[in-house]
Amino acid sequence: MKTLVLVAHPEVKDSGTQQFLKEAVKSTQNVSRRELVLDQTGTFHANQEMQDVLACDRIIFQFPLYWYSAPALLHQWLADCLVTPYREKLRGKELGLVVTTGRPAAEFAAGKAQHFSLSEILRPFSALALNLGLKELPAFIVAQFAYQTEEQHQQLLIDYCQYLELPADFSFRQQEEWSVERLKKLSRLENDPAAQQLLLQLADLIDERSERLAELKEEIQMIKDVEEGDQ
Amino acid sequence: MKTLVLVAHPEVKDSGTQQFLKEAVKSTQNVSRRELVLDQTGTFHANQEMQDVLACDRIIFQFPLYWYSAPALLHQWLADCLVTPYREKLRGKELGLVVTTGRPAAEFAAGKAQHFSLSEILRPFSALALNLGLKELPAFIVAQFAYQTEEQHQQLLIDYCQYLELPADFSFRQQEEWSVERLKKLSRLENDPAAQQLLLQLADLIDERSERLAELKEEIQMIKDVEEGDQ
Repeated sequence: MKTLVLVAHPEVKDSGTQQFLKEAVKSTQNVSRRELVLDQTGTFHANQEMQDVLACDRIIFQFPLYWYSAPALLHQWLADCLVTPYREKLRGKELGLVVTTGRPAAEFAAGKAQHFSLSEILRPFSALALNLGLKELPAFIVAQFAYQTEEQHQQLLIDYCQYLELPADFSFRQQEEWSVERLKKLSRLENDPAAQQLLLQLADLIDERSERLAELKEEIQMIKDVEEGDQ
Repeated sequence: MKTLVLVAHPEVKDSGTQQFLKEAVKSTQNVSRRELVLDQTGTFHANQEMQDVLACDRIIFQFPLYWYSAPALLHQWLADCLVTPYREKLRGKELGLVVTTGRPAAEFAAGKAQHFSLSEILRPFSALALNLGLKELPAFIVAQFAYQTEEQHQQLLIDYCQYLELPADFSFRQQEEWSVERLKKLSRLENDPAAQQLLLQLADLIDERSERLAELKEEIQMIKDVEEGDQ
């Protein structure tokens, strides 16, 4: 599965969050990232812009929330690029949103400071997905990145990469496989033999536990099946 | 009450709807209209842009629906202009939206072609109004202008001017007074004495009927009051 991340941020170089997410993408596979930039005439050219969009399976719009919507840059891109015949060719692809916000996530709710949920605020993108026949993924929200601890940042990095790489509605098993894959990759890149060995052991451990879990689940299912047969 | 209409349309001269609404504004009082235009650097300058906004009591964002949101031009304006200290000075003003769309209004509903209501799609502007302490007016929707009959256009013209000029939650009486005012104004501009006389007679007629209606309402209220006293 190919994922394309389209970043719409007017000052992407000055954004700590965007630079962090840019670094994170480097450790992924089959994910490409592109920053939207207007040409000299202040427009986007659909035929140039849409080549990599049409080639991917999952489109990600990544942007900071500006006045409860995407920055002008993304709106311009939509207007210029989602035109005949390109828009007709998007049907069946997935659409994800990576939305960064300076406000705490808890503020986006009825009765809270922002009054509306982010699902409500991002409704125009749900309408867009339905219009184009795209499969909408749940939005990935990065709230108050600058206030997060180092540990939260590390968790964010993993969650973000999984959001870009894992299938929609991924299972716990797929998430484990993904972790094992990453640990093995890290061990290959590691120079210290001891650290390399540790990473491989961790990968094996997760893998074994995961298999044991699958066996237990099967046993439980068998018990349930027998019980249902009794009724 | 001063109303300011900010038009955000990338091709305003080519839009029949926008040109029609532009003509309509000419017959209003205390309404000014301005088309948003980016400067050569592709930005807006808050201090220039906000002078007339701060001077008005009612701000109207007028735009065509592009991919379930406003065109990029308005998003750029919001980002550039709603900055400290200007945004702090907007509290208490009214915010109205005049939204044009090429789709039938009935399509914007759960289970219909557009899936979501226009209230849901325009939610980011509700959040904006709440954030800035603006009083949100119900949006004024112009759907499929090009398919409307001449009679519908005339009705639209009257409804639109009332949306710009009348107080929020205007009463039937205020609507009548507004009509009388306009008829009198038209008669002053009319050169044909017979037509002039007709317009004045119409104005008088509406005024008289309106007074009679007010008397009847008062009588009904008196009867109700007496009945309630009996209980």
